[in-house]
Parts: sequence; structure tokens; C-alpha cells
Amino acid sequence: MSQKTNIPKGTRDFGPQEMAKRNYIFDTIKEVYALYGFQQIETPAMETLQTLMGKYGEEGDKLLFKVLNSGDFLSKVSDEELQERNSLHLASKLCEKGLRYDLTVPFARYVVMHHDELQFPFKRYQIQPVWRADRPQKGRYREFYQCDADVVGSDSLMNEVELMQIVDTVFTKFGIRVQIKINNRKILSGIAEIIGEDDKIVDITVAIDKLDKIGLENVNAELHEKGISDAAIEKLQPFITLAGTNEEKLQVVAETLASSEIGQKGAEEIKYILQTLKTIGLNNEIEFDLTLARGLNYYTGAIFEVKALDTPMGSITGGGRYDNLTGIFGMPGLSGVGISFGADRIYDVLNTLNLYPQETVSSTKVLFINFGEEEATYCMQVMVKCRQAGIRTEIYPDAAKMKKQMSYANAKQIPFVALVGENEMRENRITLKNMKTGEQQQLTAEELYDKLKS
Amino acid sequence: MSQKTNIPKGTRDFGPQEMAKRNYIFDTIKEVYALYGFQQIETPAMETLQTLMGKYGEEGDKLLFKVLNSGDFLSKVSDEELQERNSLHLASKLCEKGLRYDLTVPFARYVVMHHDELQFPFKRYQIQPVWRADRPQKGRYREFYQCDADVVGSDSLMNEVELMQIVDTVFTKFGIRVQIKINNRKILSGIAEIIGEDDKIVDITVAIDKLDKIGLENVNAELHEKGISDAAIEKLQPFITLAGTNEEKLQVVAETLASSEIGQKGAEEIKYILQTLKTIGLNNEIEFDLTLARGLNYYTGAIFEVKALDTPMGSITGGGRYDNLTGIFGMPGLSGVGISFGADRIYDVLNTLNLYPQETVSSTKVLFINFGEEEATYCMQVMVKCRQAGIRTEIYPDAAKMKKQMSYANAKQIPFVALVGENEMRENRITLKNMKTGEQQQLTAEELYDKLKS
Repeated sequence: MSQKTNIPKGTRDFGPQEMAKRNYIFDTIKEVYALYGFQQIETPAMETLQTLMGKYGEEGDKLLFKVLNSGDFLSKVSDEELQERNSLHLASKLCEKGLRYDLTVPFARYVVMHHDELQFPFKRYQIQPVWRADRPQKGRYREFYQCDADVVGSDSLMNEVELMQIVDTVFTKFGIRVQIKINNRKILSGIAEIIGEDDKIVDITVAIDKLDKIGLENVNAELHEKGISDAAIEKLQPFITLAGTNEEKLQVVAETLASSEIGQKGAEEIKYILQTLKTIGLNNEIEFDLTLARGLNYYTGAIFEVKALDTPMGSITGGGRYDNLTGIFGMPGLSGVGISFGADRIYDVLNTLNLYPQETVSSTKVLFINFGEEEATYCMQVMVKCRQAGIRTEIYPDAAKMKKQMSYANAKQIPFVALVGENEMRENRITLKNMKTGEQQQLTAEELYDKLKS
Repeated sequence: MSQKTNIPKGTRDFGPQEMAKRNYIFDTIKEVYALYGFQQIETPAMETLQTLMGKYGEEGDKLLFKVLNSGDFLSKVSDEELQERNSLHLASKLCEKGLRYDLTVPFARYVVMHHDELQFPFKRYQIQPVWRADRPQKGRYREFYQCDADVVGSDSLMNEVELMQIVDTVFTKFGIRVQIKINNRKILSGIAEIIGEDDKIVDITVAIDKLDKIGLENVNAELHEKGISDAAIEKLQPFITLAGTNEEKLQVVAETLASSEIGQKGAEEIKYILQTLKTIGLNNEIEFDLTLARGLNYYTGAIFEVKALDTPMGSITGGGRYDNLTGIFGMPGLSGVGISFGADRIYDVLNTLNLYPQETVSSTKVLFINFGEEEATYCMQVMVKCRQAGIRTEIYPDAAKMKKQMSYANAKQIPFVALVGENEMRENRITLKNMKTGEQQQLTAEELYDKLKS
């Protein structure tokens, strides 16, 4: 009997329909990245553990998939080491390689390794799977694609502006209405500086974020609970009650942070980005949001996040500026700014809102029905020209019953079926059936190409 | 100082230029696969070892990359097992997953697992990396892409015909002149049957293959050395001296194999394929070659291989029919026929013959020079429309020295540079410089879009 077949938990097969949709997502993002001068690179699935370890914190190290050394993997392990049964230590003896955990560390490694060949500012994009030994759950997988673009070697805020344009263009192409939220790490640092609570900045932003839901009084109570001094809470009030247009908010922030050099710098950066984007014009709304905090330990300048407006879903895109991409590999001073589209979530949003263009999910345009060897050979000559005209064309490979061939066309959602029997061959005509309307037409080969090409 | 960065041996980074060329190869193959009704699928990089082991022979099992179980991977291993230090046994205790070794076994697993959802005949293509712990050497990597297409669930020879058309179309698109060699496993079985040397068929084809180089006498001597009986060698003579057109060769083979049922069947199959292809017409030559033997233990019908005519290189594409794809997973009776393009070798051939189209390797079409904040903001408004017109457009993000910006354009092989200074802003004009000819033109924004769109 059948050997039980399965795949590792947390991984997925993608069938033809899913792949067509995923390709639509990746191709759209690629096209826009390229329009902005980003170039694609790829790095190997496996990196040395030396490259990967210690880059994602202790928890991250545990989530790395490690690859057993080939050959006699025990040769470097002593009997004592085996008996100790120290998993962490033994893993480092048994394995030298691991699967990449994200695209950022491999990219940093790439930049350091190929530094002399690269032209800076270097604009690269990368769309590849990553692997994490996370506990699988709904929407969280052990293998998933990341779609990253980064510019390294330029401090210019024009890069931030262009990344916002990329977000706007991609989601406009998808037909997904989004809200872009933007903030700046320097502003958050400025606030921490002003109120003298540097280490509580995450607690503070979390509390501020609840204002709409729980009201000012409760926000202040929560801040108090978290151990923030009354004096600090007092100084926080202008930030908590921050409202109005982006310009109005910026005005308040700039005034309130007047005595913080870093805070002022952050406010100026946001101001430049928002003003330039206003001049250029975006289709989607961009909002200065002081409660946006993402990845505090990593980012050093602008940070942004994108949410879909018409369906509840977490952040579907995000990114920001970091001062020191390659410092972890001993090459300091290279700053960068990057963006990452969440392909799996975008996939779900497009499904929920039913936004896939029809041509994305349809594959073959016309199926030729097989009435036997002679007819089939005749058809194949017509099909050569169909394909030369770029028309996706199939013939059912066996002279099976009509019903079977028709149900194949239906299952594959093929919109047209071409029938060439004895009569058609004699008259040099092709009967073309529209599978949706049922309408049939007798066409010459040339008429067929013209009709299907469109 | 800089931490030493490297990647696992036998693996590669692909930079922007290499990726552009590789994408050209993959996109061309994908486009042709789709023209013939093949649909893309993807499977996970990791498969269970149960799926992978025992499918590639003992040698293949050793070349599988195994992934260490997450968490406490020692928990299922006893002290005795540890002390025994049996690598093979311990690997099976420490690892449940491995990296895929090819695309065929995962595809077979996919077909069995998703059997009920699939429409047969099922035409799928798959372009993904595979991993093998082979000793790395020139042209052999531990991570490389395979580009496979297969039809399963149809015995029709029209599938073979279409695969030959696919080969012909792909290499015509590449501009690579090729010779397609075709043979049939059933003919080889027929020969073995006729001469009574079933187990020597590989030795025989290897010897026959040398006829051109070493002459008939030496071929016969080699056959004798290999232990083939004189009577068998006598019977082999018509096959060894087989020459002429495909039709002439087929004639001889059919007559000589008259008493072998399977041999006759093979000859009829080749005849149908070649005759149909003649009616349809190919750009490249296809040759019936009795010495083609590839993968004897795997294929059961037609087999084929493709070689470039204008540069020495091994087989760059191959494939054939197999009777029982999914039998290894307990689902017998599903036959298939498949093809695999060797992307790495095609890459080398295209490089050697310098056949990459110019537009493949160029990325950005126009770079706007940055003269300062005001000018840059002006440019970015023009650039919005460039990008809407599908023109790949960049602006240098910093107001750096002209020389630096120009050398960036040169390094990235950007063909046009746009200059907007004070004068241009006043007159609403853009100066466009052709980087190849040095020619400069003053254009309106609309003229610019028109010129660059082409």
C-alpha cells in the first residue's frame, strides 16, 4: 500500500493556482523595484553558522535550522563531549552550516565580501525563502519568502522618499488601499531624553498607542504603573495628546523637543520626507504616527509600516533606516535604509478582497480537442503559429472521449476550445468555442490567431 | 578588524549582472513552458528523510544534506547509540529532514499527496534550487537550480513531440544552434534481447559511440574485451555500422529487430515522433542516435539529449519517458515524460557565444543628476511620469560631485543621464545626455518620456 507521504510541518507545497497568484505578487514588486533602479541579487540558502550565529539574539540562534556536516560528522567529537550531551555545544561540533534566517544578515555578509566589486550607493533587492524553526501556527511558517530592497552607502533622505513611492506604487498596482505610517527613531530618542526615561521608551509608545481605546486618564495610569515618574508623565502630555494634520503634529513635536538635538534632527527628517512626498504626490495616505516604534534596537532613523484599509490584517510592509548594516562583520560606517513586503499577508489580502486580475490566474488560452492522430497532427501545425503569436496553447494528448477533454478544459479554466474534425480539415477552418458563453465560431487559422492574441 | 566572511564551499552568490542573465534564462524557459500549457509549482526546500532516502541509490543517500532536529536533538538517542559512533544510524536519529536532491522525487511526492486535487494529464514545471553534498569542482556546485517540466498521466507520444518543440523553441530564442539526439530505451532493450546480452547494454552503447574515433575493428575488439560473445558481436554489426538519414537508420533497426516485440515498439515510437516533427517543422536538427543511453535504470521509452553546436560543452538539456513515477510512493501506474534544462551550462554557453540581448544586462535607463535639494525635488516630479511610462529611472541620492555621479552611471551601464540645473528649471527643459555617443539634447518632459520609452 501507499507509503505515507507528507512534508515537514510548517512548510507548504504551492500548486499551479497558488503559484500563479504568488508570481503575480513577486513580479509586481520586482517590476517596481526595477523601476527605481534596484537590482536583484541571490545568496545561497546555506550560510556558515559563523555568519548566522549571534545575529538574532539567543532566541534566534535556537530557531536556526542547522545542517549536519557531510561524511563522518562525529570525527571531531570526543567521547567526553558525546557523554556530556550538551545540545548547544554538540550542535556546533556536528554542524558548520545553517539555513538563512532572514535576508538582511546574508546581505550584510554579501556587501562585506563583495565590497570592492560594488558601486555605492548600492541598491539591491532580494526575493528568496528563509527558514525558522518557529512553532508553526496559522499564518506562521517554517519556510517563507521575504521580498527586501535596501540602499546602502547613502545617508540621503531621498532614499526614504523613494521607498515611500515604491510602497505607494506597489499597492496602487495591487488595488489595495493602504495607510502608510511613518515615524523616526530619533524623535523617540528625543522624547526619552527630554523626559529622562531612556529605558522606558517601548512602554511609553505602547501606552500612547492606546489613547483612542482607553482615553487619556487610563493612558497616564498605565504609564504610572510602568514606573514612569510623575514629572516625566507631565512632560509627555503634549506627545500623548498629539493630534491634527501631519504638519500640526510636527509643529508640536518640534517645539516640545526644542532642547533635544537628536529629537530636532528626527523632526527635520520627517518634515523633509513628508514635504517632498506632498510635492510629488502619493495615491495613498501617509500619516506621521508617534506611536510607531518597530524594531527599536535595529533602526536608527525613519521607520515605517503599511496597513491595508479594507480588511483587518497586521502590518503588510515595513522598513526603516539603520546606521550600521555591516558593523556585525567588522565593516563599520555603512548606513542603509530598507523595505520588506510581506508576501504571505499580501496574498491573503488579495484573496480576501478578490483583487487578482483574471489573466493572472488563467493559464492556457486555448485547448485543441484531440479527434485522432490525423486531426491532431493537423492541429499541431496550427498550434505552432498560435505559440509564435504568444498564445498559450495546448492539445489534449490522447483521443479521449469529448466529455473528458472538455472537463479538462474546465478544470484548468481554459477560456477557449478549438475543434478540428473531418469537416473543418476539408474546409480549412477551425471551430472555436467560447467556454463561458458557449458561443461557437468557424474561423480561418489567421482569424483564430487574431482573435486569441488580444 | 573585519571578521572573515565566506560562504559554504560549493555555493555561490549571484550579483546583479549574473542575476540579470540568469533571469533571462529562467524567464525564457518559463515563457515557453507556459506557451505549451505547463503550470508552475513549488515544493519546500526541506523534505522528510523518509521521502528522500533510498531514492538515489546508496551514493545518493550520502550526498543528501540532512537538517539537525530542532530543540534537544539528543533526546531520542541512547548512550549506547552514542558510543557506537555509527554515523549512518546516528544521522537517522538526529535528523528527520533533508534538503531536496532533485525536483523529481519531490514532484512524485507532490503528485501522490495531491492526487485528488490534480487534473490529469498534469503538466507541471518547477524551477528551484537543489542541494548535493558532492565534492565541489569546476562546474559542479552544492547548490544549483534545476528547470524541469513533466507531463504525468498520459502515454501519448504527442507529449514527446511537444517536448522536442519546447527544446527547439527555447534554443531558437536563445540563439544557440543545437543538435537534438533522440533514442528509445525499448530499442536498446530490443538489441539486448536479440543478441542475448541483456546486462551488457551499457558497455555496448559506450563502445558503439566510439566508432567515429577508433574505427569498426577497435570497437569490435573492445566489445570482445568486455566479454561479449562472438555471436553477439556478429549480430551487433548492423547496429554498429548504422548510418544515413534518420529514415534509413530506422529502416535498418526495424528490420534487424523484427523478432523483438519491444524493439519494434521502440522503433515505431521513434518513427511517429520524427515523422510528426518533420510535418510540424523544427529549426534545429534532430538525430536518431542509437548510442544515446542516458539513465538506463530510470527511463523506459524515448530518451533525448541536447548539445550546443558552436561551443564544446556536455549535454545542456535532456529527458525522457519513465513508466512509473510514483511507484516509489506506492502509487503505481502513473507514467510520465519529462525534460530538464541545464541552466548553469546554458549560462556558460550564452557567455561564451556572447548571446545575451543588450536589454537583458542593462538595468536602469536614465540617471538624473543631483544638483541639490531644489533641483532634485523638481526632478522627482518628472521621474514619477518616467516610471509611470515604464522607464527605469534613478536619481543620484546625494548632491555629490558630477564626476562621482557620472562614474556611478558608467559603472551601472546606465545609457542616459538627465541634467536639470538652474537654466533647465527656468526653461522647463531637461538636458539628456547619451552616455555612449556623448550627444546632448534639450527636451521637454514629454519629449523625454517619448524618447526613453522605446
